[in-house]
Amino acid sequence: MVRVLVVYDIGDNQDRQRLADDLFRLGLTRIQRSAFAGELDPQRLKDLQRIVGRYVKKEEDVIHIFTLGLRDWEKRIVIGREWGLGTKPISIL
Amino acid sequence: MVRVLVVYDIGDNQDRQRLADDLFRLGLTRIQRSAFAGELDPQRLKDLQRIVGRYVKKEEDVIHIFTLGLRDWEKRIVIGREWGLGTKPISIL
Repeated sequence: MVRVLVVYDIGDNQDRQRLADDLFRLGLTRIQRSAFAGELDPQRLKDLQRIVGRYVKKEEDVIHIFTLGLRDWEKRIVIGREWGLGTKPISIL
Repeated sequence: MVRVLVVYDIGDNQDRQRLADDLFRLGLTRIQRSAFAGELDPQRLKDLQRIVGRYVKKEEDVIHIFTLGLRDWEKRIVIGREWGLGTKPISIL
């Protein structure tokens, strides 16, 4: 399994919502409005790339997919309230 | 130096702009509208946490700071056009 972080900037409201729905369907968790995270097997990671690619249509649309190790994931710093995750990491405020 | 990724979701337009200005001042690069990346020394990383914490005011405001290894950074997948970086990683479209 690969730990992934998906961060997106999609201009069209409907496409942005559909992208979020697809990311939920892939089993990822929304950690903020335009960022999802979770674990995927290598096949699902390929699916992810293929699926999210459909939503990049305008010049300014961009999606980043990061893979990160468990340690880096657990070391993340959250300022404010992280969406959708029960266990809280280091949190200021 | 620590490689960082900052992803934010700040509701207030003016605060969001000010946060972006602060991230530029810290020497980070904007990779999409609400995400910056770059390398910081440990002291600057502390400064980053302190500075960005000022902008989390509303219930829904949240900022994530990830540290990631060079390998994970270089392996990032970009779909669409990444802002602000000359060297392009794997890029679809």
